[in-house]
Amino acid sequence: MTARLIDGTAVARAVRADVGRRVAELVAGGGTAPGLATVLIGDDPASEVYVRNKRRLCTEAGMADLHRHLPGDVDQATVAALLDELAADPEVSGILLQLPVPAHLDSEALLSHIPAEKDVDGLSTANAGLLAQGRPGLRPCTPAGVMALLADQDVALSGAEAVVVGRSVLVGRPMAQLLLAADATVTIAHSRTRDLAAVCRRADVLVVAAGIPGLVGADAVKPGATVIDVGIHRTEQGLRGDVDLDAVAAVAGAVTPVPGGVGPMTIAMLLANTLTAATVQQGRPSR
Amino acid sequence: MTARLIDGTAVARAVRADVGRRVAELVAGGGTAPGLATVLIGDDPASEVYVRNKRRLCTEAGMADLHRHLPGDVDQATVAALLDELAADPEVSGILLQLPVPAHLDSEALLSHIPAEKDVDGLSTANAGLLAQGRPGLRPCTPAGVMALLADQDVALSGAEAVVVGRSVLVGRPMAQLLLAADATVTIAHSRTRDLAAVCRRADVLVVAAGIPGLVGADAVKPGATVIDVGIHRTEQGLRGDVDLDAVAAVAGAVTPVPGGVGPMTIAMLLANTLTAATVQQGRPSR
Repeated sequence: MTARLIDGTAVARAVRADVGRRVAELVAGGGTAPGLATVLIGDDPASEVYVRNKRRLCTEAGMADLHRHLPGDVDQATVAALLDELAADPEVSGILLQLPVPAHLDSEALLSHIPAEKDVDGLSTANAGLLAQGRPGLRPCTPAGVMALLADQDVALSGAEAVVVGRSVLVGRPMAQLLLAADATVTIAHSRTRDLAAVCRRADVLVVAAGIPGLVGADAVKPGATVIDVGIHRTEQGLRGDVDLDAVAAVAGAVTPVPGGVGPMTIAMLLANTLTAATVQQGRPSR
Repeated sequence: MTARLIDGTAVARAVRADVGRRVAELVAGGGTAPGLATVLIGDDPASEVYVRNKRRLCTEAGMADLHRHLPGDVDQATVAALLDELAADPEVSGILLQLPVPAHLDSEALLSHIPAEKDVDGLSTANAGLLAQGRPGLRPCTPAGVMALLADQDVALSGAEAVVVGRSVLVGRPMAQLLLAADATVTIAHSRTRDLAAVCRRADVLVVAAGIPGLVGADAVKPGATVIDVGIHRTEQGLRGDVDLDAVAAVAGAVTPVPGGVGPMTIAMLLANTLTAATVQQGRPSR
């Protein structure tokens, strides 16, 4: 068997185009274009690239780019005051503080200045609580992107066995919650799991977010399963995921490549979250 | 094989005695006795019994009983104002709004007046978020009670297969998070799970909180497993749980009876939470 490769680049493009259409509808219906305030502190080159991409795709989707750049030696109070200003500004639908911040700043304390309804990264404790209780809220972008990929592939989740490898606050834990909300029987495996391959082999849907290159091989995959690889690692052979793609593709029904799988979904879901935030803030029915 | 019966009444008594000792230590060390404000609205007989038990055990543990009773026809604003008053009162370590409240009141809106640090039920969205993110906070009493039973029985959780049946906000979901925090490989099963017995048979530790009398029989239990029954149902044969106790006792290594298993733990953990809340509020190191 040769697995279908799931084209995350194409799905992300479709999500962004859908967001763009809905932004246009919102504006045509008398609403205000959503505004995304990316906040970058200092001049870390990788962070600059990430923020530039977010701003570009935000603009392409018809949303307002409300970027703010602060010098690397800015003090905590100044950043906090900026976040408070953005929190109070009705033009700002979503606030994204680009991490990591310089070491002299307390990122946890700064993030607490972003109100839950503008937390478009979906990583605040308030949004984690809403997700854990099955209540509406902004969902973390990467796991939300995985759900969008599964939806695009028409993967049946109700009653399916889903296994999530990894229990990070950014991916594994919210991923399990989202799969549970979709009525899957969900297992979270992690570094203490005894026979990881055996646990993974139960999965109709296997999401790997362990941060270990090539962790999951063919012996860990049920024939025909859908395998989603959230890992991304720079290796001598180029970018690689947590899944041994060549080996797994011989067993799985469908698998995401790295790069070009989950990666492009994250910004697409950030834009979708910004639109959702704006829709709620403007008192319009959200989808 | 005949399973060991886990004596929740005895474990709960030991937890309460420990809380009582620590309260005495806190006071002897110059701290203030923790105060629990139970808030009862109206005169539902079952609620009155629950609140009376909580108050009695609170007093027995050396804590201040700061009970408040409101008439059944009280309006929303009056209850909200009382909760705000209790939230601001330094004598009040924990606030417990007894549910259900009369139908004309909005319980969700009322619960939002209880600050996270006084939410000794551990069921607020804020505390759910802290639990989901693996951060310190007050944990829901029933799942915390299950963890205390497992600890009392010296059940090894790291790397163990744990299965939770049921995904309620009160029990199933936080239960899964607590087992995950203890390094178990955790599966959440529920009404949509396809072969429930097969999923349950994987479990070294099986926690059943499905709300269906006798749902789990011997065919769903791995020989030697520890089985915790959170269900409680009034039947013609008396109180019964979600587990068919007679059948399961022939297979399991240990099992909680109903009554006398998980039930007594809930109030014990409420008292433990009230002590924890007081300890944090008084700026003392918590255990």
